Amino acid sequence: MKVVCIGSGNVATHFVHALKSSGAELVQIWSKTPLHAQRLASEVDAIAITALEDISLTADLYLVSVKDDAIAGIVATLQDVQGLVVHTSGATAIDVFPDSMHAYGVLYPLQTFSRTKALDFNQVPLCLEAKNEKLLEQLKAIAKQLSPLVYEVSSDQRKILHLAAVFACNFVNHLYGMGQQIVEENNLGFEILRPLILETALKVQHALPGDVQTGPAIRKDEQTLIKHKALLAGHPELQDIYETLSNSIKKTH
Amino acid sequence: MKVVCIGSGNVATHFVHALKSSGAELVQIWSKTPLHAQRLASEVDAIAITALEDISLTADLYLVSVKDDAIAGIVATLQDVQGLVVHTSGATAIDVFPDSMHAYGVLYPLQTFSRTKALDFNQVPLCLEAKNEKLLEQLKAIAKQLSPLVYEVSSDQRKILHLAAVFACNFVNHLYGMGQQIVEENNLGFEILRPLILETALKVQHALPGDVQTGPAIRKDEQTLIKHKALLAGHPELQDIYETLSNSIKKTH
Repeated sequence: MKVVCIGSGNVATHFVHALKSSGAELVQIWSKTPLHAQRLASEVDAIAITALEDISLTADLYLVSVKDDAIAGIVATLQDVQGLVVHTSGATAIDVFPDSMHAYGVLYPLQTFSRTKALDFNQVPLCLEAKNEKLLEQLKAIAKQLSPLVYEVSSDQRKILHLAAVFACNFVNHLYGMGQQIVEENNLGFEILRPLILETALKVQHALPGDVQTGPAIRKDEQTLIKHKALLAGHPELQDIYETLSNSIKKTH
Repeated sequence: MKVVCIGSGNVATHFVHALKSSGAELVQIWSKTPLHAQRLASEVDAIAITALEDISLTADLYLVSVKDDAIAGIVATLQDVQGLVVHTSGATAIDVFPDSMHAYGVLYPLQTFSRTKALDFNQVPLCLEAKNEKLLEQLKAIAKQLSPLVYEVSSDQRKILHLAAVFACNFVNHLYGMGQQIVEENNLGFEILRPLILETALKVQHALPGDVQTGPAIRKDEQTLIKHKALLAGHPELQDIYETLSNSIKKTH
């Protein structure tokens, strides 16, 4: 399978390496920044290009992994390619592809990627959508080479997943940050919280969050809630978040 | 080392097994509920007792692992014991012990314990405090048999840790639950979020949360923020939390 990758960010980088490992041939890596294209291309023996006109027309898969607002522009330049064109965006509907294109789809990885941290692609849920059933089967075959976690997800569902990920990843990380702030202001290091953070995530790998909720709010332990709010007296913002989330836990359970 | 455990809940259970594994002799397990005392005692070849008067006076360590508001009452009955008496509570100051007692301290595990999920005690930070320096050294020696993660933590710092744990564990789990609610209402299963949840926790094991924050709020991606709030139109409470946490991320970064 010959692959062209348009983009050189975190998601593109992880996909390109996973594709290479699965036996695909990376023919070209495009980035508007020559250094970025060259860096990633050199890692997977591909050719670095910076002009969209130089994109090969004969690859089997075109992976468009660029900022959301750049997808439509890129796609417009890929009208004449023979292979399957997919984007990797959670927030972009499939109708970003013009109907005139013959083979397109979406390959959205529901995961958080870091440039510096290696990640087992077996742990990346891949959410698929395609122009038609035949192309979906084709995309599914490609996806299964990369990860066992393959899901059919509509554009509307994908938007929802993107939103759920904000709660389960972005907001969660921000709460870790508040934990960090609280301990550091009291001469303790963030490392003391790390095992708790990891165990909290491990717990819901085999249970549902609602079944393992703990803490003063679910116990309706008003004394502790009052004490905690008093400890946050110097931080009206943390106090507000403490109150909002505690009330939400009480209402939910 | 001879140990008496007062209490039979999650924390007591995990401590008792860890102590047994480290070579300690569990002599008695107390619970006011006979069945609970018997269950845990039978697991570690101890004697189950339900009357505080039956507690042996000659153990080396008395582990008081009961509800916060029961600690003072239990401690009052342990005035005459010879060994070191410790409680395991995050929210209870060391002054719950009367000065007249000769050997007391705190052994607070900063971790979330489930009855059903095994947990490597090597991943449990143990926060220590004691009546005096000599007893602290004695407690440290005991703690190091159980976990390499041993910290000296004052009563004030311990309260802070308990508060930080609400953010990093209880609130985080509640956010997982909101993610669950959002996906399930759209005919997707919670399992699709599990790899993301785990990776989010793994990421901060070697980084600081502030350095790995991602998402629309930190990018100041107002278009996505507006779209997400619209998707939550039917859930004013989730909308409120979305807004509160997004604003907090924007302010922090």
